[in-house]
Amino acid sequence: MKPIRSLTLLLSSSGPHFVPRTHRCAPATCRRRLTVSRSLQAYQVPKSRKRPDAVMAPTATTLKGQPLDKPVLDAMLRRRMFYTPSFEIYGGVGGLYDYGPPGCSLQANIVDLWRKHFVLEEDMLEVDCTVLTPHDVLKTSGHVDKFADWMCKDPKNGEILRADHFVEAILEARLNGDKEARGEKVEEKDDPKKKKKKAKSEAVRLDDAVVQEYEEVLARIDNYDGPQLGELIKKYDLKNPATGVLPSDPVAFNLMFQTSIGPSSNLPGYLRPETAQGQFLNFAKLLEFNQGQMPFASASIGKSYRNEISPRAGLLRVREFLMAEIEHFVDPQGGKKHHRFHEVEHIELVLLDRDTQLSGKTVTRKIAIGQAVKGGLVDNETLGYFLARIHLFLERIGVDLSKMRFRQHMQNEMAHYACDCWDAELLTSTGWVECVGCADRSAYDLNVHAKRTGAPLVVRERLEEPLVIEEWQVDIEKKKFGPLFKKDAKTVEAALLATSQEERETLSKQLDAAGKLTLDVAAVDGGKVEIGSDAIKIEFRKRVENTREFTPNVIEPSFGIGRILYSLIEHNFWTRGSDGGDEARGVLSFPPTVAPTKVLIVPLSSNAQFKPILKKLSQQLRSLGVSSRVDDSSASIGKRYSRNDELGTPLGITVDFQTLQDSTITLRDRDSTTQVRAEEGKILEAIKSLVDGSKSWDKVASGLPKFEGQEVEVAVR
Amino acid sequence: MKPIRSLTLLLSSSGPHFVPRTHRCAPATCRRRLTVSRSLQAYQVPKSRKRPDAVMAPTATTLKGQPLDKPVLDAMLRRRMFYTPSFEIYGGVGGLYDYGPPGCSLQANIVDLWRKHFVLEEDMLEVDCTVLTPHDVLKTSGHVDKFADWMCKDPKNGEILRADHFVEAILEARLNGDKEARGEKVEEKDDPKKKKKKAKSEAVRLDDAVVQEYEEVLARIDNYDGPQLGELIKKYDLKNPATGVLPSDPVAFNLMFQTSIGPSSNLPGYLRPETAQGQFLNFAKLLEFNQGQMPFASASIGKSYRNEISPRAGLLRVREFLMAEIEHFVDPQGGKKHHRFHEVEHIELVLLDRDTQLSGKTVTRKIAIGQAVKGGLVDNETLGYFLARIHLFLERIGVDLSKMRFRQHMQNEMAHYACDCWDAELLTSTGWVECVGCADRSAYDLNVHAKRTGAPLVVRERLEEPLVIEEWQVDIEKKKFGPLFKKDAKTVEAALLATSQEERETLSKQLDAAGKLTLDVAAVDGGKVEIGSDAIKIEFRKRVENTREFTPNVIEPSFGIGRILYSLIEHNFWTRGSDGGDEARGVLSFPPTVAPTKVLIVPLSSNAQFKPILKKLSQQLRSLGVSSRVDDSSASIGKRYSRNDELGTPLGITVDFQTLQDSTITLRDRDSTTQVRAEEGKILEAIKSLVDGSKSWDKVASGLPKFEGQEVEVAVR
Repeated sequence: MKPIRSLTLLLSSSGPHFVPRTHRCAPATCRRRLTVSRSLQAYQVPKSRKRPDAVMAPTATTLKGQPLDKPVLDAMLRRRMFYTPSFEIYGGVGGLYDYGPPGCSLQANIVDLWRKHFVLEEDMLEVDCTVLTPHDVLKTSGHVDKFADWMCKDPKNGEILRADHFVEAILEARLNGDKEARGEKVEEKDDPKKKKKKAKSEAVRLDDAVVQEYEEVLARIDNYDGPQLGELIKKYDLKNPATGVLPSDPVAFNLMFQTSIGPSSNLPGYLRPETAQGQFLNFAKLLEFNQGQMPFASASIGKSYRNEISPRAGLLRVREFLMAEIEHFVDPQGGKKHHRFHEVEHIELVLLDRDTQLSGKTVTRKIAIGQAVKGGLVDNETLGYFLARIHLFLERIGVDLSKMRFRQHMQNEMAHYACDCWDAELLTSTGWVECVGCADRSAYDLNVHAKRTGAPLVVRERLEEPLVIEEWQVDIEKKKFGPLFKKDAKTVEAALLATSQEERETLSKQLDAAGKLTLDVAAVDGGKVEIGSDAIKIEFRKRVENTREFTPNVIEPSFGIGRILYSLIEHNFWTRGSDGGDEARGVLSFPPTVAPTKVLIVPLSSNAQFKPILKKLSQQLRSLGVSSRVDDSSASIGKRYSRNDELGTPLGITVDFQTLQDSTITLRDRDSTTQVRAEEGKILEAIKSLVDGSKSWDKVASGLPKFEGQEVEVAVR
Repeated sequence: MKPIRSLTLLLSSSGPHFVPRTHRCAPATCRRRLTVSRSLQAYQVPKSRKRPDAVMAPTATTLKGQPLDKPVLDAMLRRRMFYTPSFEIYGGVGGLYDYGPPGCSLQANIVDLWRKHFVLEEDMLEVDCTVLTPHDVLKTSGHVDKFADWMCKDPKNGEILRADHFVEAILEARLNGDKEARGEKVEEKDDPKKKKKKAKSEAVRLDDAVVQEYEEVLARIDNYDGPQLGELIKKYDLKNPATGVLPSDPVAFNLMFQTSIGPSSNLPGYLRPETAQGQFLNFAKLLEFNQGQMPFASASIGKSYRNEISPRAGLLRVREFLMAEIEHFVDPQGGKKHHRFHEVEHIELVLLDRDTQLSGKTVTRKIAIGQAVKGGLVDNETLGYFLARIHLFLERIGVDLSKMRFRQHMQNEMAHYACDCWDAELLTSTGWVECVGCADRSAYDLNVHAKRTGAPLVVRERLEEPLVIEEWQVDIEKKKFGPLFKKDAKTVEAALLATSQEERETLSKQLDAAGKLTLDVAAVDGGKVEIGSDAIKIEFRKRVENTREFTPNVIEPSFGIGRILYSLIEHNFWTRGSDGGDEARGVLSFPPTVAPTKVLIVPLSSNAQFKPILKKLSQQLRSLGVSSRVDDSSASIGKRYSRNDELGTPLGITVDFQTLQDSTITLRDRDSTTQVRAEEGKILEAIKSLVDGSKSWDKVASGLPKFEGQEVEVAVR
């Protein structure tokens, strides 16, 4: 429980003063945090290459191009219980949300389509691994050490500050004060949210040398660690404007939720920050399940957890979230080709590449993925294949393609071992939101787990022609070696076998010279072992290989379902009637496939004669696999339709007195509000074809008698 | 972090000495623990009414009545990666399992059917609430105080013992020793697992009075708390046979996983032990979403967590598990009728009622649920309706009805406020496993949360005729009251309004006599408040009511998906060929609806000409919504079919050289291994009708030409 306790002493509960933004920590974890829960829009790369996104980002608009009124949308989402703050009657907890019935159904439909689009379409091996994860696993993956933010505390008011944000804000305020004093124009901040929160500048002129020094610090702000940030605070006397005192020294705050597994506390564990590790740990079993065949992909849909310091962006930054991740394992040799790449190579993607960002621009270009891979813009076919598949998925669920782009990661955003990484970003009222990450992770994860556990996370392939190899080989004298290291023997052996040819040559020389060698083994006490020449031999000799052994590389598309869901809501939202003088009424124009409910059934009145008809219609729709909901409340038909427009229900059936006579019912299209009337069977058939996407409303409407009837357009609530 | 820390001091990591069994803790939580993760078979009700289950339980059998060889089944499930211990390459963690591809798919299919059978069929309001839950919520629900086991530690070897089990085992051993010394027959323990572990008895004769005293203790063993168990240990000098020393005093071990939410540690939280609380907390919003209409049900599918002391029963007792829970809210007035009860009243259930168990028997009776409710055996229609619906669900997914029963809870198993509770139990090789609990929980949860938060978790109904009520009424003088209690004002007000008529009368007298009153308010510092007559009045007077206000009762069907999944596997498992001299080969005869994959497609050989046909077949099946998998490995067709029998794939298609000529393919039935051959289109049509359940294999086979061909029955592996 150490990390939590140490924090108890140093940090209070109040939120940080500055809006958090992209976190640049160590390789293994930086990427992951970016993927799902970081960096809404304010990528703060060093000054010289700051992304001018938000400045240039168009104002958020609705599906119909109207200005998007976020408070109106938020109120509607709450009223219709798409989602709601968790534990609200207890005062709520930041970053935790419950999905109500429509949100829950929308989420289930997105997940269902995801499973069909990826898992079933490509025979991926889906696994469901536990959220509880023991310490050792996340120590190896790098999360225990690196998945952290540097925090300091104001000793006077207890405010918690993110150290890098704090230093940045104060220095920027001083530079702005300097500009003011010099009578220069102070440039606008690029983040509208941050503007409100930034430290207030005073018009104080600085020495030219100081200005240069501050600018240099700001350009490198992402590269300082905690102690260095602490030094900067002292060196430049950076006081918290709120209290006038210096904050405490920065301490690392790990963002994983910690717990203890079992009755004693000697098995510390965490809630996983991603689903990926479970897939990596099962690699050998999955390969066997796949009968040894490569390439293959595993997939997982499940909750992950990140203990965000001060989550404030609704569904876009939460502490508990649903992820869907794919780990596609591929042979690193042969250019990472993909056998279905030809099926997607013509698909045009909107790309924002690294060089463009470096030049300070956000100009995107539309380019066929085939061409992008050929020209080297996207590293390889497999990565390109998944970018195209992600594009198709987002299109399929109803994302507005004009509000989607793929942004390439900058070199300093990526893990050192990653070859290339692109985020699918969706434009919302909060700016560009990264919703899907797609990275080539090389062999990093499999390698570190194999090294730590000794498990062979490799593929063995029969060679058609045996290879003769001359190399440094390690021979272990098991009888001596075992007793020497006891329980650590396996770990030490794994570390030995993981040595490179160069290292072996050096070790061999040590052995010859001193009769023993010293090896770094991080996982044993002391971090080092000594092995004498009685327990080990290292020789340069020939070896014939009949099989090739390799660690696969991993291409990882990683989806944040909550972020996609929220962006999808914004992309499909618009208001009706605002121009006609009536109160504007919200509509969510979800495609039928993802709409929470497909059909609303409304009786004209509460007349008992309608009851059996409503029941029969529900049953018939159910047997067609179409979800429906009856609204037999006393509100007017217009009001009931408006309510369902807000819920995104694409179709509405009305049962009225004519139905009792001739079994005809009306069918209403949510988006156009036009209606047709026909005999029950025909309407059900039309519904089936609209829901499975085989016909459009225009097609259906042209084949059935138009109806202009009971709908009275009255504003809801 | 206190509870975890205090345990660190007292308990080590070694497992308890005796097999854990039904936990009898306090009302609010006892029931829940029983529901999903407790009491595999050894219900240890006090001696006089001990359930003789295991003694009488028939030997576990396969679907075909063969003796069930559990090691063979377990090996098969591992080999086919239905599930696998989590983090196995790191040595594994008890009670945590990952589902591999077939297990994951089986689980998804069960959940999908559950959602169709319950949520969609009855328009339930599905919600998805967070797993992270703040301390206050679970304090109110009773879990923080009561969801615990009493544990003690052997100071010599660090062994962790469950206190009640320990006392019981030692006293039973002494009584057995006494019987031996008296030359009486020692009765067999009813739990085969426990037999191995029980304390060894020595033939020592006890005084008659001592025998009686021991027997009295054992009869009441479930009613002692920790300190009492500690006293018994000292009084009777109960030493741990393994070390010869007395264990430490019992300490409570809370079974919830604890963590800390946010950057400071002043918001302690837990991983939820059930999904129910999130549904209760959202009650008011759900009622509004349902337009105020009663009754209605919410539903939730999600993971829950229980930090079991020493989980050892595979999927039957795990620390992280998937639950599906329904909370059906119903007006307590009017006998809890259900408007669809007539649809199920004829359904016959196998019931094991309370009285039968009290008489020491396990004789079940088959009785129509209509009759059971009418006769008062099952408390009310709504409860009866859900028992029948649970029966239908389990039947639909493929549970063996001859291995299913509903067992009524004993009075001391139930919460004090619960009216009635029945468990759906499935017979497996471990005995009767409770897989679904179905309880009438009265208004307990809504009441405690409303009382604690002041939120009105009630239904308001317009009365047709206004009611005139004469009663004690509380008037609060807000201007005095607010400043008096500041932040606690709301809490104190809620406590005042929650007082009964009797309490109000007493308080009124206090107020008259002393000019002030004293009220217990657990949630404020000190637990008591004083209120003067300037801030409050309590009067007996008339009041006219136009609306009726009530707290709904809750009927809660609660499903442990992992237990159902495992039991379903056992119920559908059998072996083929064991009588013919060949090695026995496992088959899982899942119904097509839940089978992980519906169709296996095998090419006769790896001939390239087959490739396009395989691809086309896969695509055609996918467009029919039927999942398939191609096995083009080099194993013989018989081997490939056997592999898929183990995976429970109901249908197999073979593509051979004849296919190239006349487009015919063969279709194989997993259970009978008979095959038919016909033109592709006809086979696909047959598959569709087999998978959607509209035709049986016999029907299909009688309409298509029989095929006796390539299958060679060879054992797999």
